[in-house]
Amino acid sequence: MKKILLLCLLPFIGLAQTNKSVQASRNWINKNGPAIISSYAELLAMPNNAMDNVNIRKNAQYIQNMFATRGFAMQLLEVEGAPPVVYGEYKVLGATRTYCIYAHYDGQPVDPTTWKNEPFQPVLFDQAMYKGGKPIAFPKNGEAVNDNWRIYARSASDDKAPIIALMAAVDALKTAGLKYTSNIKLFFDGEEEAGSPHVGTFIKNYHTLFDDVTVWLLCDGPVFQTGDPTLKFGGRGVTDMELTVYGASRPLHSGHYGNYAPDPGFMLSQLLASMKDEKGNVIIDGYYSSVEPISAFERQQLARVPNIESTLKDDLALNYTEGSGQTLFERLLLPSLTVKGLYAGNVGALARNVIPNTAVASLSMRLVKGNDPEKMLDLVEAHIRKQGWHIVYEDPDHETRMKYPKIVKVDRDKHGFPAAKVSMDHPDILPVIESVKGFTGDKLVLLPSEGGSNHIFEVIFDEIKKPGISVNIVNHDNNQHAEDENVRIGNLWYGVDLMCVLLTMPQTGKVVKK
Amino acid sequence: MKKILLLCLLPFIGLAQTNKSVQASRNWINKNGPAIISSYAELLAMPNNAMDNVNIRKNAQYIQNMFATRGFAMQLLEVEGAPPVVYGEYKVLGATRTYCIYAHYDGQPVDPTTWKNEPFQPVLFDQAMYKGGKPIAFPKNGEAVNDNWRIYARSASDDKAPIIALMAAVDALKTAGLKYTSNIKLFFDGEEEAGSPHVGTFIKNYHTLFDDVTVWLLCDGPVFQTGDPTLKFGGRGVTDMELTVYGASRPLHSGHYGNYAPDPGFMLSQLLASMKDEKGNVIIDGYYSSVEPISAFERQQLARVPNIESTLKDDLALNYTEGSGQTLFERLLLPSLTVKGLYAGNVGALARNVIPNTAVASLSMRLVKGNDPEKMLDLVEAHIRKQGWHIVYEDPDHETRMKYPKIVKVDRDKHGFPAAKVSMDHPDILPVIESVKGFTGDKLVLLPSEGGSNHIFEVIFDEIKKPGISVNIVNHDNNQHAEDENVRIGNLWYGVDLMCVLLTMPQTGKVVKK
Repeated sequence: MKKILLLCLLPFIGLAQTNKSVQASRNWINKNGPAIISSYAELLAMPNNAMDNVNIRKNAQYIQNMFATRGFAMQLLEVEGAPPVVYGEYKVLGATRTYCIYAHYDGQPVDPTTWKNEPFQPVLFDQAMYKGGKPIAFPKNGEAVNDNWRIYARSASDDKAPIIALMAAVDALKTAGLKYTSNIKLFFDGEEEAGSPHVGTFIKNYHTLFDDVTVWLLCDGPVFQTGDPTLKFGGRGVTDMELTVYGASRPLHSGHYGNYAPDPGFMLSQLLASMKDEKGNVIIDGYYSSVEPISAFERQQLARVPNIESTLKDDLALNYTEGSGQTLFERLLLPSLTVKGLYAGNVGALARNVIPNTAVASLSMRLVKGNDPEKMLDLVEAHIRKQGWHIVYEDPDHETRMKYPKIVKVDRDKHGFPAAKVSMDHPDILPVIESVKGFTGDKLVLLPSEGGSNHIFEVIFDEIKKPGISVNIVNHDNNQHAEDENVRIGNLWYGVDLMCVLLTMPQTGKVVKK
Repeated sequence: MKKILLLCLLPFIGLAQTNKSVQASRNWINKNGPAIISSYAELLAMPNNAMDNVNIRKNAQYIQNMFATRGFAMQLLEVEGAPPVVYGEYKVLGATRTYCIYAHYDGQPVDPTTWKNEPFQPVLFDQAMYKGGKPIAFPKNGEAVNDNWRIYARSASDDKAPIIALMAAVDALKTAGLKYTSNIKLFFDGEEEAGSPHVGTFIKNYHTLFDDVTVWLLCDGPVFQTGDPTLKFGGRGVTDMELTVYGASRPLHSGHYGNYAPDPGFMLSQLLASMKDEKGNVIIDGYYSSVEPISAFERQQLARVPNIESTLKDDLALNYTEGSGQTLFERLLLPSLTVKGLYAGNVGALARNVIPNTAVASLSMRLVKGNDPEKMLDLVEAHIRKQGWHIVYEDPDHETRMKYPKIVKVDRDKHGFPAAKVSMDHPDILPVIESVKGFTGDKLVLLPSEGGSNHIFEVIFDEIKKPGISVNIVNHDNNQHAEDENVRIGNLWYGVDLMCVLLTMPQTGKVVKK
């Protein structure tokens, strides 16, 4: 009886608290918008490639300090060979639930030559570059801030935005005198863009810190393409493969040997062209065989997702999409095979009259439930052999080169991981959905799985078997992983609102022990 | 009668002079080898991309001064928008012939990231890098110099080597008290690697300087693969084409859009794979139709060229060569189509999880007699259209992108030129062949045409209708146009010998006025 009453009151209680929290957020942003942006620019100016041992630790220490000065008990968790996890906790007397907020402070590698600005010198634009935005000065305290402004820098969206949003939310709630309703833990990963190879080891080695977590709040990835608020319940798996094909033992003059020496650019093209048809379907035997169909419940949720096809095609300037006219979200239920990089010799002003001695393709594979990363790589290798290629795993020696006409070196990803999903109607998850809905209303988009991949999904859902939700705040057109990455200021403010809501969710429902 | 006597004596007279000249060369090299190498390193340290207006002129002034101090009347010839031609002349009283020595002082663009050393910081190796050579200190005066040493730097072979060899030859002959037998002119081109677009204008605008040239000695390109001395009588034509294919209007996250957004890497591969079969034959309609067969005389000379197939395949580590088992020199009688560069996104450590928004291929086409550059480009365009592509010549606008599924931007080379050859038995050319043979003996290789292209062939042979010979000195394994370009010291010394021989050729035979 008491439980039923509580559940009935839930939306109302939640909403009341939500309103106060959102008000606290808005008050804080209105007074301190320029200061938040300025703090953000400071964080973004720190290079954060996970492989850059010195700089990645500077980021970790900076973030550790950011929350230590705000009352969190902070420590850097260490596992050999990995950047530290920035861990924090804030205990609330009498709290029955513990939420662990996950984000990552490392970023994708950068190729500065392709960026319009330096990737680690944040620049503010009055709107998105691709919409004709122009650079503007950072605002001074007291100046108005426009929601459509964008900050351009590596990791502006992926994934320092939730960290700075949380920082501002902590300040906002403190200023408003609002208390957290649950225990809060922080887990800031330092190697997500390197595939989070150690995240499982961290959680295992430090399991006493995480055993009591009720729900993980996984803050990574963009909101829905319409800009509507979004929660997701899993992600695709991922693996990759790099292919290097070999011509002569050294680059040759295209005049002296052109029409005689094997031509790696054409050889690689022939190999790749054999893998995918002109409609974008992968034509590697068995590539789609292991796909598990999604559940009826998930299909129901998917059917409610706004249809954005024509807007999306217009936004991305697409005449066609891969496959046979399925929607984006239907296509994300299948494994992908995409070229993330091609390289041979040079093009443009640097092009020289040579026949390069190698050509390289970097392939990305996104996986869905049922796809095993190793087996998917095996399928590609089997296909390559069927096309008459000899596969090597190191650069071939002279004898091997003399023996085989078509040689390809295969570099298999060693950090691939499968897709992972949590059930959308898990009893510990429903209250979080309700709290967020109390703030966003019905426009909240619920997606069974995102197209992207985060090793943390697999670790949380499949290894330690805890529920989690992907809580997204950044704009979808953020150029994540590419050059000119950016965050829309309005999305940053939405993130502050949402963090305030999450930190003050009502303690409702029974905690499910697993 | 007198003429017959002279022709009979020719080999003997030539040989006597040759012996003295070569002795002068060797004496000079033995005493001054380290100093010549040191001067060469100084010249190679000057960046020499034709587009680099400031540095290319530094090279020109340096070379102008090099020969001015050695008794040549020097001037910089100017044509708007071009690096200067370094022109020089040395008049010999009573000379009946005038030889113009052509070389170029500009070099191919460099991509320093692919070089083992800085391209403009010359390094000396004790043998070729690819044979396991190690860097060594530059020799001091008096120290022994080994023929197998190599200098690594951009333009070490292509094409500053003939310039430094000529410098040393001038010094060698002066020291030995030997006089030039013909008038000598110098024409050092500053934009050969940019296709020598102004060479015709230079020769036309300054025609009074060149009207009296008997034979052009075109010093560019390597000796035969066996290392044997080589003369060539023409070159292939050349043109190129850059293709850019388009996916979405911006790079996309490979997770969020993989399996949905068009994939430029695969699209480009499919287009390229349609152009060439697995044997290396171009399968574009009409690509081989316009080829003119070579003459019976040329075919005779070709039959005498040493068969180097097995050595060459071993040297280049080739299991197969393009076509159906023809020799290199047979293949060079056909037009080529090779990929000189492929580019999309990134590979290796810089690879990011994106679907790039474009993919680019830079194609090179070498042409033979009968091929018109523009018509060959037209054939490729027609082929592309037949594959269902929409061709644009500028980046497509939004409307165009929405209208066509497969869009490719075609950048046609504007500086292509056709193949050009001179008759091997031209009466003004025979005495030069004889002189060189007097020094080299019968191992001299005579090739009707080289695989490479030099606009100067077309200008000299077809526009101003003068005879010319391609006089080659550098090693064939010089990585010309690629990274780690180098020259073998023994070839540099051969170049000094040969320049001494050419500067002191007997004045024999009747000059043919054309």
